[in-house]
Amino acid sequence: MNSTAMKSFIDVPPDSHFPIQNLPFGVFRRQTGDASVGTAIGNHVVDLRALEAANLLRLKAVNGRDLFAHPSLNAFMGAGRAAWREARQILTLLLREDHTTLRDNRKLRDAAIVPFDEVTMLLPCQIGDYTDFYSSLEHATNVGTMFRGKDNALMPNWLHLPVGYHGRSSSIVISGTDLHRPHGQTKSDDAPAPSFGPSRNVDFELEMGFFVGPGNELGRPIPTTAARDHIFGLVLVNDWSARDIQKWEYVPLGPFLAKNFGTSISPWIVTLDALEPFICPGPRQDPPPLPYLKMDEPFSFDVQLEVSLQSEKMSAPHVVCRSNFRHLYWNMAQQLAHHTVNGCNTRPGDLLASGTISGPTPDSYGSMLELAWMRTRPIELPNGETRVAINDGDRITMTGFCEREGLRIGFGGVTGQILPARTG
Amino acid sequence: MNSTAMKSFIDVPPDSHFPIQNLPFGVFRRQTGDASVGTAIGNHVVDLRALEAANLLRLKAVNGRDLFAHPSLNAFMGAGRAAWREARQILTLLLREDHTTLRDNRKLRDAAIVPFDEVTMLLPCQIGDYTDFYSSLEHATNVGTMFRGKDNALMPNWLHLPVGYHGRSSSIVISGTDLHRPHGQTKSDDAPAPSFGPSRNVDFELEMGFFVGPGNELGRPIPTTAARDHIFGLVLVNDWSARDIQKWEYVPLGPFLAKNFGTSISPWIVTLDALEPFICPGPRQDPPPLPYLKMDEPFSFDVQLEVSLQSEKMSAPHVVCRSNFRHLYWNMAQQLAHHTVNGCNTRPGDLLASGTISGPTPDSYGSMLELAWMRTRPIELPNGETRVAINDGDRITMTGFCEREGLRIGFGGVTGQILPARTG
Repeated sequence: MNSTAMKSFIDVPPDSHFPIQNLPFGVFRRQTGDASVGTAIGNHVVDLRALEAANLLRLKAVNGRDLFAHPSLNAFMGAGRAAWREARQILTLLLREDHTTLRDNRKLRDAAIVPFDEVTMLLPCQIGDYTDFYSSLEHATNVGTMFRGKDNALMPNWLHLPVGYHGRSSSIVISGTDLHRPHGQTKSDDAPAPSFGPSRNVDFELEMGFFVGPGNELGRPIPTTAARDHIFGLVLVNDWSARDIQKWEYVPLGPFLAKNFGTSISPWIVTLDALEPFICPGPRQDPPPLPYLKMDEPFSFDVQLEVSLQSEKMSAPHVVCRSNFRHLYWNMAQQLAHHTVNGCNTRPGDLLASGTISGPTPDSYGSMLELAWMRTRPIELPNGETRVAINDGDRITMTGFCEREGLRIGFGGVTGQILPARTG
Repeated sequence: MNSTAMKSFIDVPPDSHFPIQNLPFGVFRRQTGDASVGTAIGNHVVDLRALEAANLLRLKAVNGRDLFAHPSLNAFMGAGRAAWREARQILTLLLREDHTTLRDNRKLRDAAIVPFDEVTMLLPCQIGDYTDFYSSLEHATNVGTMFRGKDNALMPNWLHLPVGYHGRSSSIVISGTDLHRPHGQTKSDDAPAPSFGPSRNVDFELEMGFFVGPGNELGRPIPTTAARDHIFGLVLVNDWSARDIQKWEYVPLGPFLAKNFGTSISPWIVTLDALEPFICPGPRQDPPPLPYLKMDEPFSFDVQLEVSLQSEKMSAPHVVCRSNFRHLYWNMAQQLAHHTVNGCNTRPGDLLASGTISGPTPDSYGSMLELAWMRTRPIELPNGETRVAINDGDRITMTGFCEREGLRIGFGGVTGQILPARTG
């Protein structure tokens, strides 16, 4: 049986993001009880703590010690690629339709397999440090063109290194968390002084991010060739942004309050192993990168991405952007190599996000800033409303999946609503 | 007895930073055994876990639950100001020369009181997020003048808000940790393309930082008036910087690899209560800050600061800078209020640093960039060597203390050496 045709005894609807070939990792809580690590299959969560407690998920890679006893994936992330692969192999076997150990153990199935609608998803791990890159050539060019004109769009460093900056880890929230419109200082070009109040220009940014596995010691860089040992898996990221706050605050040290009021991530971490079939060549890099950023093989991923907006007056979400992770100029191996080349250390659970993933066409731009081209081309919604930024009550949902020859490996989604600014 | 004259039964040398009026908090490890929370007095560490285990340090503020059983201060930081004050009162009593409970308990004294030279200091807590401000008017003006000329030195936002950015928490290291010169991309003005290699312009930045106490929930700002409830205490910070890497990478998203190869902090956190006698007015703020940044009372602190450099050829350190924490334009209450005004949450153990603390005179500039004015005025060392940046083998040590009427409340120091770049 080839792996694409392999099936589980748990029902997987045809359009599901979570066939047995995916097996992403996340942390969930039942209606009662503690949080636990799980994997997703079809519309169900499988409780890995329960499988470990039943001694069905003891990994040789870590001499059988507990990896799933805590409500966080940090220990598993830190255990390394051999452990990730072994867990994946064991879970694939346990969940196969022709394997009896779990399938025919009614008591364990009842204890360990829970429908999606009976759980709440939580942050998958403690995120020590969060870094956000700026790796889409199209996004950087669009933004640069708006602010500095077409001829000076790209900064001189952009084609030589993956530009990035540190973000805020405390305000990373799980999909489903709604956020209040942030207050802040802004200054319009014609005002003599700044004023304070709710942001009038809240935006989304379509991104993906990866979690670091074992990490590296201070002083010991991770070369591009070791990336697979250090990338645990990927999620969708909505890097909410307040453009008017950003415009006033960002010189000379970069975005700060414009970003750190909240960053939303999807709950299921899709592993690099699940994504391997969807590796594809990335954009040609010219000028050629310096040796420490050079790649000998492709490391881009064909992930179809979509962003929808639903206002309070709409009865269904409306797609405002379709993009693809493969468009990114700088890939994850290059981001990690650059991040650590000065000796900076990373730890299990660190999150590195891509930056806005814009494609080449106007309908593939990954932010409203670009889609509505600096408020000059309002986005039309099916009910006649228009948008140049996010209004109170608007819900933004991002989804993404890979698909080929009947196999779909998906990320589920990340959703959140912008609530009115707090008044007290 | 007034508090300045109060003495401990533990000997405190006259020039000590740690009289009974200080009682800073830190985490230490004995030559054998686990790490533990302690306070410093004279040249000794007092083990708070031992005192708690002996039921001498059970706080009513937390209903007597364990606060010092873990090798980290996060739980104590999160317990809030009432707990901090109660612990301080109890410790003051236990250590007084006229109080017998600990003084006359030989067994407990032997178990709980350890000479400095028998311990190694560790990071005092898990630092979730690290933020670095840029709050010295003199520093911002100096750097701006060098790069943009005197007339455009300050960015338009600088006098209206405490500019800040997120730093890297993973690479914060404790005093005494030596760091290798970082590699990175740099580009000289006349080169056609960037090159890769060890930084040729490593610098220190003299800063102080404060640790957050209970913190705030997402969406709930901390007003300036609540600062005392949220600032646990302060340390010295050396924000090591690679100027050549910074110059090439920092547009448009701010410093990244130029900073995150290492940030050093002093091990003893001096509490706000210990520093209260040294509150003083800060610089006049003109234009007046927006209401959310307004202060009704002074919240600057008179901390005398000093930086010394010792090369491998020198037999003693040489002071290269004398500055003062009171010079900062934006104070800690304003930094915290600004950081959270958009709803950004903070957590116990988060670190907020001041930015380089430069004073008004050339000998008070807090970085070599400024002291040697962009490499144009080499710093002369007593043995005839000169410096425009840090050489391999140079040791940088920062110290700081408050002093008034015979009372000295000090921070100890933060020291570290720049080792040659790694070759493999």
